[in-house]
Amino acid sequence: MSVRPKSRRQVLTDFRRSEILDAALKLFGKKGFAETRMDDVAEKAKVAKGTLYLYFSSKEEIYEAAVLQAIEEQRERIREALEGVTGTANRLRVLLQIRMSFWETQPNVYRMLVTLGRERSHRKQTHTLLQATVRELVGIFEDGVNAGEIPARDFEPIGWAVMDMLRGMNERRLYGEADSTPEQDTAILLSLVLPAIGLRTQA
Amino acid sequence: MSVRPKSRRQVLTDFRRSEILDAALKLFGKKGFAETRMDDVAEKAKVAKGTLYLYFSSKEEIYEAAVLQAIEEQRERIREALEGVTGTANRLRVLLQIRMSFWETQPNVYRMLVTLGRERSHRKQTHTLLQATVRELVGIFEDGVNAGEIPARDFEPIGWAVMDMLRGMNERRLYGEADSTPEQDTAILLSLVLPAIGLRTQA
Repeated sequence: MSVRPKSRRQVLTDFRRSEILDAALKLFGKKGFAETRMDDVAEKAKVAKGTLYLYFSSKEEIYEAAVLQAIEEQRERIREALEGVTGTANRLRVLLQIRMSFWETQPNVYRMLVTLGRERSHRKQTHTLLQATVRELVGIFEDGVNAGEIPARDFEPIGWAVMDMLRGMNERRLYGEADSTPEQDTAILLSLVLPAIGLRTQA
Repeated sequence: MSVRPKSRRQVLTDFRRSEILDAALKLFGKKGFAETRMDDVAEKAKVAKGTLYLYFSSKEEIYEAAVLQAIEEQRERIREALEGVTGTANRLRVLLQIRMSFWETQPNVYRMLVTLGRERSHRKQTHTLLQATVRELVGIFEDGVNAGEIPARDFEPIGWAVMDMLRGMNERRLYGEADSTPEQDTAILLSLVLPAIGLRTQA
């Protein structure tokens, strides 16, 4: 998002940071978060341990950075996909479709978000990220009100309900506990939410 | 549920088992599950370590037994509360109200269910318990169909959606991330589900 071109130094720093993140995520996925040591991360990323600590002071910090990076990428995709899309149902569908399929590309990060993200030490970050998505959803509903499509109401509880359904569906799909597709889950979620906000379900 | 009266020995065994469970739950709540050792549990429950292992071979087993016991108690309350209640909306409301308020009496067990219950080693138990509740919900919907109240359809996805919303609401309330009451959350959930199954929301 920065306008100034990055310095050579900044480019190198970013590159090394993302190399470390990649290495750590591979290890977390393979050995498990609890079993991975910072030494393993340094070795896998081919950096000295001292160098690793210049970037991240703990595994917890690596986890939080990985989640932030994934969520930022997801938001960027949603922003792009929403360009030019109009109508509450259509905009909601686009947002849900991306949030339903996105984690298939990063299942390891998602599995950590499902478990670690609920631990006391990370709940605050998780809650803040969820709140941001709820605000995006509420924004879509309010645009619908402003366009005269749906009646005004307090949309926040509906925003949270959508988040809860989305998270449950993603969790079951990514752990192989449901055999639905992201498209089927999107359709079910829409069939619950659209009538609740005063729109008819579209087939 | 057993018809035969319990032997004196069985009564003693049950008593000691529940004493151990109580002691363990207190420790898990205070020190955290990861930090509690089986030695601590034996000490707190005032039993020899050898005796403890006659009842539970690991902390993981204690956790699973505690969850099962809580869920069984919850089911029993729901069964009793549903006696004589008719109508899909009313029956659904009763079930939700109990599932929304129950964990306030056992927040430690619930917090473990939220975190540990999602770890690989416990997902199967968690999923099986969730499936049973989804079946109860589907049963309520199908009774509504048989009574000519609502149209037939595949209710399983709606049952899961209800579970997801319920879990999200309970989780936020029990971690102090939402200031809604169980009654308010029940009303919101009903306002989403009733129209989806073809019933009007009741004020």
